[in-house]
Amino acid sequence: MATDPAPIALDILNRVDDASFATALDGVFEHAPWIVEAAAGHRPFASLADLHTTLTGIVRDAPPEQRLALVRGHPDLAGKAARAGNLTSDSTAEQASAGLDRLSDDEYAAFHRLNDAYHAKFGFPFIVCVRRHGKESILVAFARRLENTPQTELDTALAEVLRIGALRLDQRVTATDRLPVHGRLSTHILDTHRGRPAEGVAVELFELTGADSARLVTRAVTNADGRTDAPLLAGRPLPTARYELRFHLGAYFAKLEVPLADPPFLDVVPVRFAIAEPEGHYHVPLLATPWSYSTYRGS
Amino acid sequence: MATDPAPIALDILNRVDDASFATALDGVFEHAPWIVEAAAGHRPFASLADLHTTLTGIVRDAPPEQRLALVRGHPDLAGKAARAGNLTSDSTAEQASAGLDRLSDDEYAAFHRLNDAYHAKFGFPFIVCVRRHGKESILVAFARRLENTPQTELDTALAEVLRIGALRLDQRVTATDRLPVHGRLSTHILDTHRGRPAEGVAVELFELTGADSARLVTRAVTNADGRTDAPLLAGRPLPTARYELRFHLGAYFAKLEVPLADPPFLDVVPVRFAIAEPEGHYHVPLLATPWSYSTYRGS
Amino acid sequence: MATDPAPIALDILNRVDDASFATALDGVFEHAPWIVEAAAGHRPFASLADLHTTLTGIVRDAPPEQRLALVRGHPDLAGKAARAGNLTSDSTAEQASAGLDRLSDDEYAAFHRLNDAYHAKFGFPFIVCVRRHGKESILVAFARRLENTPQTELDTALAEVLRIGALRLDQRVTATDRLPVHGRLSTHILDTHRGRPAEGVAVELFELTGADSARLVTRAVTNADGRTDAPLLAGRPLPTARYELRFHLGAYFAKLEVPLADPPFLDVVPVRFAIAEPEGHYHVPLLATPWSYSTYRGS
Amino acid sequence: MATDPAPIALDILNRVDDASFATALDGVFEHAPWIVEAAAGHRPFASLADLHTTLTGIVRDAPPEQRLALVRGHPDLAGKAARAGNLTSDSTAEQASAGLDRLSDDEYAAFHRLNDAYHAKFGFPFIVCVRRHGKESILVAFARRLENTPQTELDTALAEVLRIGALRLDQRVTATDRLPVHGRLSTHILDTHRGRPAEGVAVELFELTGADSARLVTRAVTNADGRTDAPLLAGRPLPTARYELRFHLGAYFAKLEVPLADPPFLDVVPVRFAIAEPEGHYHVPLLATPWSYSTYRGS
Repeated sequence: MATDPAPIALDILNRVDDASFATALDGVFEHAPWIVEAAAGHRPFASLADLHTTLTGIVRDAPPEQRLALVRGHPDLAGKAARAGNLTSDSTAEQASAGLDRLSDDEYAAFHRLNDAYHAKFGFPFIVCVRRHGKESILVAFARRLENTPQTELDTALAEVLRIGALRLDQRVTATDRLPVHGRLSTHILDTHRGRPAEGVAVELFELTGADSARLVTRAVTNADGRTDAPLLAGRPLPTARYELRFHLGAYFAKLEVPLADPPFLDVVPVRFAIAEPEGHYHVPLLATPWSYSTYRGS
Repeated sequence: MATDPAPIALDILNRVDDASFATALDGVFEHAPWIVEAAAGHRPFASLADLHTTLTGIVRDAPPEQRLALVRGHPDLAGKAARAGNLTSDSTAEQASAGLDRLSDDEYAAFHRLNDAYHAKFGFPFIVCVRRHGKESILVAFARRLENTPQTELDTALAEVLRIGALRLDQRVTATDRLPVHGRLSTHILDTHRGRPAEGVAVELFELTGADSARLVTRAVTNADGRTDAPLLAGRPLPTARYELRFHLGAYFAKLEVPLADPPFLDVVPVRFAIAEPEGHYHVPLLATPWSYSTYRGS
Repeated sequence: MATDPAPIALDILNRVDDASFATALDGVFEHAPWIVEAAAGHRPFASLADLHTTLTGIVRDAPPEQRLALVRGHPDLAGKAARAGNLTSDSTAEQASAGLDRLSDDEYAAFHRLNDAYHAKFGFPFIVCVRRHGKESILVAFARRLENTPQTELDTALAEVLRIGALRLDQRVTATDRLPVHGRLSTHILDTHRGRPAEGVAVELFELTGADSARLVTRAVTNADGRTDAPLLAGRPLPTARYELRFHLGAYFAKLEVPLADPPFLDVVPVRFAIAEPEGHYHVPLLATPWSYSTYRGS
Repeated sequence: MATDPAPIALDILNRVDDASFATALDGVFEHAPWIVEAAAGHRPFASLADLHTTLTGIVRDAPPEQRLALVRGHPDLAGKAARAGNLTSDSTAEQASAGLDRLSDDEYAAFHRLNDAYHAKFGFPFIVCVRRHGKESILVAFARRLENTPQTELDTALAEVLRIGALRLDQRVTATDRLPVHGRLSTHILDTHRGRPAEGVAVELFELTGADSARLVTRAVTNADGRTDAPLLAGRPLPTARYELRFHLGAYFAKLEVPLADPPFLDVVPVRFAIAEPEGHYHVPLLATPWSYSTYRGS
């Protein structure tokens, strides 16, 4: 991400000439400069939401051929262009975020087969807002969408194009508002043995990427309020995927010199859950003693 | 276990001649027939507990040299005799129960080093009642006991000899009583979404044998009362080890057509815990909705 | 209850002459000796269930006038006959079980009005198996059943007659089986602070008889398994009513010298619930620390 | 409270003449104008905390006779002056806050006896910061403090004088800081049946004022986040007392058309707890389904 252009402020975008405006937003829509070019004339925008609504309207009101061309301008997921390094920098970063740059040969072959079947049926590439997904959920969506009718699927593809555009816009432009494209995952540990927040508990978040494989997403330690100083995930969509939180409870109670069994009945407590709403707020707390715990989707 | 001799009833043992009595109990103490021979004269025994108390007394009252010889008569754990297949059938089955017959080269080397250090310090082999342990807990016990003084360690070794004998006795002899050498692990699933026992939930029990390795111990499905028809573990000591129960909750609620997220927030719920009392009763229930669960050491 | 006749064994009932049989079962159906008289010829009965099925069939197959007379033979609930002491001993005991002998003047007037309206609409007295109800739930049923059509209500009344008969039969006759007329309420306290059953906790069960009134039903103290030695309610239908369990948790933890706030955060923990299935099994456990608790309908 | 003087800003207090300063803070210490008079010369105060520290120092450094006089200047709790209406307006409002103006004759007699015993032992009136207590906890403190030595009790009384002064000061003077004299009680309801906050649940908070008596403190309804818009108690010390929260859960689930028993297993859920730290934050959440709930001291 080091080479990303610095974000530009909306009030500057409102003032620059049309060409600069179009350059600044180049790539928000993949290989479709006409969208941001058309938006230039609608300035000034009161907010980022206002700009996004305008862009959405331009896409929706475009003639069918142009909408189809917009969809066709996208690369295949995990396709040959990706393997050859011929993607836009946005697409490259996005596909990497879901691990599509680290597929096994079998997985690559699976994507290849799905891409072929999809092209054969619909005549355009499969588009999905990758940052809202893990690898498994992309495959699930791929298989499901293959069942759609052509018209439904074209609408679905355009909706994904707009989601991708919204995310890119939110990263490129600063304003007093932000687009509602971010989710949040947080936790909280209550020590119900002592009736207070559990401070100093190590917590790890893993994404479960297969039956037996997991990828460490982040680590944190709870503060005096039993929370992590920052959310475990925030400022981005939460990829639809399966996760595991690991709470290092045994070490916490051992340090407090609470009487424990040897080995302790509970040590590292795993909590597995799936995220299904990338823009949602997931709060997954733990209420624990050395002998019991509860967890739930909180708020 | 197919070639194990059939158990013999205590009231028969009380009536047969001394030689037959000794033969029937041959091997309850490893390479030490004098213990059961001495017990023959104390008959009749009112109960298995009575017989075991008598055997324990004979060991405790034996002269020091004989007690030391008893200890020395045991094989090394995961030692050369084991590798060469030169153990008694009891020892072979016991060592296999903790996976000592399936060690990696590194693990074998670790046992080898510990055996050498132990012999060098104490002059007799390391004895532990293997059926009460997993591989990890044997290694923990081994390292801890190396710190003991010779006298404490000789007492510890003899206590383990008596534990091994009690287990073998309990398998060989039937009586109206049983020796208190058995633990029990059970579970129970309450569906607190619907306020009733959760029927038809698949449950798996794994023993965690390393940082990333697990061994399936048993599978079951809950009945109309939310329990498994038989305990998950029973009729033997519970090996001191780390375990993971996996409750297939997502499939259960999906079958009931309860509204779920996609993917469901909770699917396979893992509960990790350790057993520290091989003769204890561990009840590990789950109270669950599609969005929350609690677990605890129950009774 | 002191003057209740001793129960008689089914195999004796199967052998005595018809008159003795009828006498033994006199009163199982209020003022309707013809039912048990007709049953005498169906002997022998293999079980109490068999006898009950036969009695039910006799009632069901009786001509309409006789069925109506059976219903009309019952006294009013909390009516003039009750106030004057002119009920059968069964009816007296039953009405007392729901507190109908201890009504306030307002409550008596309410029953009086309902009885009048019911007689006016249906031409027979309101019959309900009182032992399955608390005072509140009788009033609720009374008001609801006033909405029924005459035919539905006659069927309902006969069903209640058969329920009353089943309960009386179950008390009068011993056999290897019992009729499924009994419910059960039990509890269990887990101390999740220490990971073991909570022993020695005082528990009280109250029936909530009004907005601010409660009647102590029973008291108990938990044993070493965290349970009460006997169920809180058993061997009878559980009256449909609101209840409150009070768990004396503060005293329990104080005795264990667990560090507590002063006054303790939790002291007497009330759990309010309603019973809606008189023949059901209600298990209402408590999982508690000095700072938290959970309760649920268990099994 | 309608006639309370409007609070005055600290920066104004820092600028007015000495006499106006003393007048503005008149009554912060009962019948002891010398304390605020002495503080005037220490101006300007950087914060309310700074002013309070200065006042505390003046009291601590005063000669013993003056400290004793300060204590002796306070009225009896629930004493003759209170009954006759001869208290300062601050004292009147404070004693009313704990219900000391609504004592039964028995309670009044109990206070009278304790006041007499206390005067007899210590020679000064019993002083307690009433706003930090309920009636029961005042009586408990009264009885306990009667056991103190005279010196300990004089220190205790002065500490209470300073607490009373801090509270009055915090009400009288506005500044960028506030004194740490406030507690907070909040709640949060999670609907774990549906995995989201429970919106629209009526909640009542009662103070339990005797074995069978309760006083409604406040009512609220949960918002879309399952919380009440404002804390249940805040902006004041939380009186040390026993409380009961009543959550109207049955009505909430009935409105959602969740299948319930009739009557519902859970309807109004009472949670009883005590507050022992008047300046603490008590968060008492409820996690509930129609068949289960958990509560705990959270954060």
